[in-house]
Amino acid sequence: MTVPPGSGTALFTDRYELTMVAAALAEGAAHRQCVFELFARRLPDGRRYGVVAGTGRLLEALSEFRFGPADLQLLARVVDADTLDWLRDYRFTGDVDGYPEGELYFPGSPVLTVSGTFADVVLLETLALSIYNHDSAIASAAARMVTASAGRPLIEMGSRRTHEEAAVAAARAAYLGGFATTSNLAAGSRYGIPTAGTAAHSWILLHDDELSAFRSQVAALGTGTTLLVDTYDIRRGIEHAIEAAGTGLGAVRIDSGDLGELARQAREQLDALGATGTRIVLSGDLDEYAIASLRAEPVDSYGVGTSLVTGSGAPTAGMVYKLVEVDGRPVSKRSSAKESRGGRKSALRRFKPTGTAVEEVVHPHGTAPAAGPHDRVLPVPLVRGGAVVDGAADLGAARERLRAALVAVPWEGLKLSRGEPAIPTTFHTE
Amino acid sequence: MTVPPGSGTALFTDRYELTMVAAALAEGAAHRQCVFELFARRLPDGRRYGVVAGTGRLLEALSEFRFGPADLQLLARVVDADTLDWLRDYRFTGDVDGYPEGELYFPGSPVLTVSGTFADVVLLETLALSIYNHDSAIASAAARMVTASAGRPLIEMGSRRTHEEAAVAAARAAYLGGFATTSNLAAGSRYGIPTAGTAAHSWILLHDDELSAFRSQVAALGTGTTLLVDTYDIRRGIEHAIEAAGTGLGAVRIDSGDLGELARQAREQLDALGATGTRIVLSGDLDEYAIASLRAEPVDSYGVGTSLVTGSGAPTAGMVYKLVEVDGRPVSKRSSAKESRGGRKSALRRFKPTGTAVEEVVHPHGTAPAAGPHDRVLPVPLVRGGAVVDGAADLGAARERLRAALVAVPWEGLKLSRGEPAIPTTFHTE
Repeated sequence: MTVPPGSGTALFTDRYELTMVAAALAEGAAHRQCVFELFARRLPDGRRYGVVAGTGRLLEALSEFRFGPADLQLLARVVDADTLDWLRDYRFTGDVDGYPEGELYFPGSPVLTVSGTFADVVLLETLALSIYNHDSAIASAAARMVTASAGRPLIEMGSRRTHEEAAVAAARAAYLGGFATTSNLAAGSRYGIPTAGTAAHSWILLHDDELSAFRSQVAALGTGTTLLVDTYDIRRGIEHAIEAAGTGLGAVRIDSGDLGELARQAREQLDALGATGTRIVLSGDLDEYAIASLRAEPVDSYGVGTSLVTGSGAPTAGMVYKLVEVDGRPVSKRSSAKESRGGRKSALRRFKPTGTAVEEVVHPHGTAPAAGPHDRVLPVPLVRGGAVVDGAADLGAARERLRAALVAVPWEGLKLSRGEPAIPTTFHTE
Repeated sequence: MTVPPGSGTALFTDRYELTMVAAALAEGAAHRQCVFELFARRLPDGRRYGVVAGTGRLLEALSEFRFGPADLQLLARVVDADTLDWLRDYRFTGDVDGYPEGELYFPGSPVLTVSGTFADVVLLETLALSIYNHDSAIASAAARMVTASAGRPLIEMGSRRTHEEAAVAAARAAYLGGFATTSNLAAGSRYGIPTAGTAAHSWILLHDDELSAFRSQVAALGTGTTLLVDTYDIRRGIEHAIEAAGTGLGAVRIDSGDLGELARQAREQLDALGATGTRIVLSGDLDEYAIASLRAEPVDSYGVGTSLVTGSGAPTAGMVYKLVEVDGRPVSKRSSAKESRGGRKSALRRFKPTGTAVEEVVHPHGTAPAAGPHDRVLPVPLVRGGAVVDGAADLGAARERLRAALVAVPWEGLKLSRGEPAIPTTFHTE
């Protein structure tokens, strides 16, 4: 297959991965069998769980990880000719195991295990971390918001607050996290996520008055549409909305002010006008705490933007990608505070007979501790000999997996307040 | 020109922009002449200035903003057939004026002004905001780090902590902000930014011992390379480094521990070994405050990752895109706290004869206040009739512009501590 210049994912890579490959090829160490592990040393401050996300995107990016002609031209300034030849033919041919997408993770969970020659595997470091650190940060924030919303649907509408490509990945991670829809059309196109939208204040301001704006929107989009009622006076806005659409109006959106108080007033007013089926959509700087505080109010759905796409205070998951094994020998860094555990690892999660999770057990690969009937081995095969395992990238399955995993979290683990991880991680040694 | 399916930038757009266009086409309001303004209501908490970034990327994305066949197929589920026909031929044919890239902005600065028909201009809302909110957030953080580094070069190495495409834009914004180099190869390829890199701990762990790892790196990459000395014991690491490379070694990197103390010890040891020209590179969770605290230490350069790509606490610039004028008539939202100033605006910055900035004056377009000989009109033409103005996307010029703009900031405005904007914004009315 010919790769068009610069269209692949191989340059989403730190320069030092390439110079390490060059040096390793020169001396021969490039071909040593290595295992790298992707994991989080800790959760973001006070968080009680993390959500594994990005698996599907990584597996897709892996198949496009090729050095095309334009890439090689650039790299001629970075590495020697022998390395260029090696890169020209590069395909990942190793194995990947990992927590399936949508699974929970805790400090030290071996989220991803990548095996192959040093050169094969080190090249994927930057891309794998970029994808997992971004997507897991967003999915973890999304899951908290979904918990806070107590069953009311959430619309992801944060595209404008983050990089345009990150926005598409954020919409995907939010959907994985339980959001109902996204405003992002590219996410709809690429991942089949349901899209949704209302109207902007500019729509109202474009018209001579609010009533004309509403009439025009209803004429074009039907009475099921959502009218934005807070451009001028909300009470008048709701009157105009029902005047334009009738009592069958789909929804009104309120984007500013004291949202709880305004929702109550809007509900009363709508009901008094006979629009008892018209829903109320709230938006405007909502995060999981604001959503939780609106639980008692007559809200039908929430639009969430900034806080979702910025991970609600934790914009990166802080995962690392560490060499843990060389030719079957465990290796680890030994200086200072950032100590790592050497050796390839696996993990299982222990559950009570009631289905509640109690412990994450991380253990050396191949020496699994006795597992009870309710316990679950966490890593699954994702890539074998460079080929993606069937079903490993299924977004719908990941969404369902997370929903089920959260049901099994002890109730304290779902609290929004800062605290310890929902379950402890126990490290077994050989 | 034929657009390959889905390769353009047009789907980086919220669904409601498209449904508003559909409704506006149906009633005719789509063709009203409109002016939208992109601006920040406030700076991130405690920040004293913002850096305009993303202009070059937006102008490039604008030329690829076309709805291709695959896009239209998706949009057939969102809008009617007439709208699809209109989208098929869509090219932005309006005008864009704005602060040049690299210029400073303050609350209310009219950073970008987009003029054309409603349909033409509203479609760009999401993409313009995504690019400006991301890139300006990163460039603003970068500029603070560069100030804190007091002339020592900074290496951007945060790719692994953010979305893989956002990483490339972040490297660009960091370079604009004054960073010397980036680890990101795609940024080197796309924008010609100088790339740099050292080696990872995995490089050391791949080898039987540290000395072999260093020898192999020096053999392949030369004595000018940077050796990572903190995998085991730093003092032994430096001994090994000089043993492997000789006293002509380029640099050592320390990535963990008490960086100031370790830099002092390393400098003493290197000097005692005769490696007086070997540089010391520090990395490991550095932000502008950590960099400033290392000012008295013998550090030669810094590697910065997480804090850079996450905007050091402000991952989005919080800019908005608001309709301010319809057919020459000023418009603005009137409810609640989020009030806006209607009407197309321009701005000038006032300076003392010494060159120090004193005030940002935002005024109605076409009614400029008297400008002194030292004052500067801020917006420049960026796009005319859909065509990008020559030189508007020059990254090198933007970098130089920011450097000059920061020289003119009052000294309190460069403090890292939280405070008021470096200069006040004054709003003139007609």
